[in-house]
Amino acid sequence: MSLNWELQAQKAKDILQDSIPKQWLLPAHKLPSADEKNMEDFPRKSGLLSEKELTITDMSATSLVLEMGAGRLTAEEVVVAFLKRCVLGHQLLNFATEFLTDRAIARAKDLDEYYQRTGKLVGPLHGVPISVKEHIGIKGLTCNAGYVAWVDDISTEDALLLKCLEKAGAVFHVRTNQPQSLMHLCCSNNLTGTTLNPYNRTLSSGGSSGGEGASTGFKCAPLGIGTDIGGSIRAPAAFCGSYGFRPTALRNPLTGAKAPEPGHEAIRGVIGPLASQSVEDLDLFQRAVIDQEPWDIDTSLAPVPWKRVNPTKDMTVAIMWDDGYVRPHPPVTRALKHAKAKLQAAGLNVIDWDPYKHEHGWDIISSMYFPDGALSQRTLIDKTGEPTLPLTAWAFAYSSPNPLTVAEAWELNVQRDIYRDEYHALMKSRGVDFILCPAYAGVASVLGESHYWNYTAIWNILDQPAVVFPSGLSVDLQLDQISGEDKTYTPRGEVDDREWSKYTGPERYEGAPIGLQLVGKHFKDEETLAAGALVSGILNDETEQTRSML
Amino acid sequence: MSLNWELQAQKAKDILQDSIPKQWLLPAHKLPSADEKNMEDFPRKSGLLSEKELTITDMSATSLVLEMGAGRLTAEEVVVAFLKRCVLGHQLLNFATEFLTDRAIARAKDLDEYYQRTGKLVGPLHGVPISVKEHIGIKGLTCNAGYVAWVDDISTEDALLLKCLEKAGAVFHVRTNQPQSLMHLCCSNNLTGTTLNPYNRTLSSGGSSGGEGASTGFKCAPLGIGTDIGGSIRAPAAFCGSYGFRPTALRNPLTGAKAPEPGHEAIRGVIGPLASQSVEDLDLFQRAVIDQEPWDIDTSLAPVPWKRVNPTKDMTVAIMWDDGYVRPHPPVTRALKHAKAKLQAAGLNVIDWDPYKHEHGWDIISSMYFPDGALSQRTLIDKTGEPTLPLTAWAFAYSSPNPLTVAEAWELNVQRDIYRDEYHALMKSRGVDFILCPAYAGVASVLGESHYWNYTAIWNILDQPAVVFPSGLSVDLQLDQISGEDKTYTPRGEVDDREWSKYTGPERYEGAPIGLQLVGKHFKDEETLAAGALVSGILNDETEQTRSML
Repeated sequence: MSLNWELQAQKAKDILQDSIPKQWLLPAHKLPSADEKNMEDFPRKSGLLSEKELTITDMSATSLVLEMGAGRLTAEEVVVAFLKRCVLGHQLLNFATEFLTDRAIARAKDLDEYYQRTGKLVGPLHGVPISVKEHIGIKGLTCNAGYVAWVDDISTEDALLLKCLEKAGAVFHVRTNQPQSLMHLCCSNNLTGTTLNPYNRTLSSGGSSGGEGASTGFKCAPLGIGTDIGGSIRAPAAFCGSYGFRPTALRNPLTGAKAPEPGHEAIRGVIGPLASQSVEDLDLFQRAVIDQEPWDIDTSLAPVPWKRVNPTKDMTVAIMWDDGYVRPHPPVTRALKHAKAKLQAAGLNVIDWDPYKHEHGWDIISSMYFPDGALSQRTLIDKTGEPTLPLTAWAFAYSSPNPLTVAEAWELNVQRDIYRDEYHALMKSRGVDFILCPAYAGVASVLGESHYWNYTAIWNILDQPAVVFPSGLSVDLQLDQISGEDKTYTPRGEVDDREWSKYTGPERYEGAPIGLQLVGKHFKDEETLAAGALVSGILNDETEQTRSML
Repeated sequence: MSLNWELQAQKAKDILQDSIPKQWLLPAHKLPSADEKNMEDFPRKSGLLSEKELTITDMSATSLVLEMGAGRLTAEEVVVAFLKRCVLGHQLLNFATEFLTDRAIARAKDLDEYYQRTGKLVGPLHGVPISVKEHIGIKGLTCNAGYVAWVDDISTEDALLLKCLEKAGAVFHVRTNQPQSLMHLCCSNNLTGTTLNPYNRTLSSGGSSGGEGASTGFKCAPLGIGTDIGGSIRAPAAFCGSYGFRPTALRNPLTGAKAPEPGHEAIRGVIGPLASQSVEDLDLFQRAVIDQEPWDIDTSLAPVPWKRVNPTKDMTVAIMWDDGYVRPHPPVTRALKHAKAKLQAAGLNVIDWDPYKHEHGWDIISSMYFPDGALSQRTLIDKTGEPTLPLTAWAFAYSSPNPLTVAEAWELNVQRDIYRDEYHALMKSRGVDFILCPAYAGVASVLGESHYWNYTAIWNILDQPAVVFPSGLSVDLQLDQISGEDKTYTPRGEVDDREWSKYTGPERYEGAPIGLQLVGKHFKDEETLAAGALVSGILNDETEQTRSML
């Protein structure tokens, strides 16, 4: 049965529109003009948020919990501050799919009441507002996962991760945007449109957790929840100047996150945190979840407790300057050089990383994304006749035109396991604890241009934990001019040429922060976050006293 | 290309024949006649083994290591004793595929030399002879996995598990038989024939690790290694009066075990120990392997250390008398009643277990065994034209005639995960720590009759650890006559009827020990073995002082 897809899509727009707390909307004339790119300073300029609210939204989750624990902030004023910033962010960046204003405020009041009555916090995330990618189900609310066909689907239960976070004290205040098919590193769909980058609105906020990129990058939430099967947490974090963590698979519970291929586990999507302020907040999130032993409910998880790990400088970081396939854009390389100098000055052992068969890794994972020839996805799209967006078609093209047989799919599993074992052995034999590398070939993608995934996807096929954080640098109109050997660089092939050509100069990416990615060994999630906190602190000139991890 | 399969198969027979240490062969006239069933007492009668050798082969791995550690036994005399018993066992039961006499003795001498030089043992399995199921690869030796087509295949590396065991001090002295396709709960192939049950040679030694069942049941090795995707460790242990453990998947490394569907992971086969003497030896094996952190090499494993768990009577054991689908034979039910009385008398909390959708579980797992319509297996068989054995055809019939699509395979994964989560939740809500149940509908299978797998396979689909041990009882020609309500029992359907009809009376299963199965929660492997040691000790009237676990 063919439906009028636009009528169906309108329902998602209505849900969003009806949910916006109108009292905080800025009138059109107070908004920046459409050609203003960088929104970083607008919250202060807007006049919507009080000085205290600006301070609150600049705080980390860790600090907010400390303040609430000391009675200096209430959960209600915290969530109201972030909700106001959300409304502003949404007007500027179109990142939300639904505001949860009333229930969030009611929940915050309950937390405050509990605190006043007992003098205690309910858990390690007491009163922390967390934004939630739309396809992570919330009981009683619709869940469309970026498909018009699912616009009426209502979740019958909260996703398990949300239950854990809620038990730890979290407040869910806004749901966020995702691309059609969940398989763009950009963020555009036929339901609620396109999400923009807070630092440059001609750029994408990344994807598929692009709503979360904007949410955390614009500080609409100290923590957010994304999912990642090829970079979907890390690309948005890198594009938007925030923090993002891809845990090893089988650690965080994915139960209740909706996607068209349930049971497809050759390559496992993961669910994990983004944060607006710090790597430490990513650890806080992980700790709060895994301390609850979610494997005792979702038995697909590995029962591995969340260790407490102290950052240490006694480690070897290897820098991967280039994956051997697609050359990073000049600002990214500059950030890596900056990092190398800073880390060496801080006394870390820094060497180079020679990448191992990344093209082979991409061949495996790209064949695994849609083993049924994307039939599951195409069927959903065809159901309503919604247009297939260009980046959806791009991703579907990874699949073979015909579905794989189960035996062909098994052969990919074998290749995956061999490759993962080999890469792990290589890190050990080279004495490398962590790999520091680009999170993307460029600093961000111009809207619709996110074609090359393998600076992130490679760690999905290898199932290694990876954390993204700002390098401390942004695109610089002087320093990032194409110069030196870049001027005469001859791309290695079609893909390299396509990606390199996108960098016509820093102007195209003006204002964008430069994120980097630190990758740990398989299942060394805690160590990766501890190292990420240390490295991030060094790059951003924080003293060790500034932050404490635990 | 069609080969003469019999010529090919002869190669496997030759490898076996050439490897037998002829000096220990009994002449035909000294062997029992073919119609003598129970071989239990024959080692003593045979005159082949000295009194000391009989004592050695009656000892547990734990005790052997203690004796070697005290200098009271040498590794060489230990392995020679077991090798002699192997030769005898093989003449009676046809359980071996290859003897490793020279290398085993050389290895034992090396261990003795090390001990004499240092006064130390090389590891927790110092000098322990371990028999190895043939499809577990040994570098430089052929590996046919029960297929004539693979008779010339030579392993390029030792299986990872063997490397771990060897590092811990183990001595591999004999390789053991398996059925064609590895998918019978009996043990018959076109290469080296059929393995028989040591307690009754008209019965099967079980399968697919049937060589291991006979090896441990006849005490040809204190420990053996099997694999299990539907009961293939536990059925042989139960049939042969020995001990067997199916660990949770992702704990022991399967790398290097050969099978026709590499990369097929919807239902994961596991590798694990059998033991001739005790549950404690199963724990010793697990400890020796997992303490080496095999996940740092085989990254498909979950990095879960092997805990030290002390047995405790503070637990609830629920008895599953019947799976609701196939009624256990009278001796099995008698053993469960015996167990209930003993456990209650020992002060354990014993309740009944109402099985939850076991038929549904079977529907899922049986559909998962050959998602490609058994094409991988059929192709291998067709390659040489070897006959498809009846139980091979039986197993292949589980598959749908046409290969599943990848999407159909995903749907089974979803069903599997839901079912596993539900079962886990049910054990928690009912306050049950362990389920005590049959390991098979009968005490053993008459040769070629092992049709119903679901007393074991259910724990494969649920991925729960399960240990099998002797109940302390054997089939009794008086007590196990069909009587009372059994006389008028009306089977619930075709399957129940087929299985129930096999029990025409105790005579058919004369001499067979009755094994039972104790099942723990997902990933509670250590607790399951600790409880199994306790329960096994209680059933066999051992005092707590008799054995110590750690």
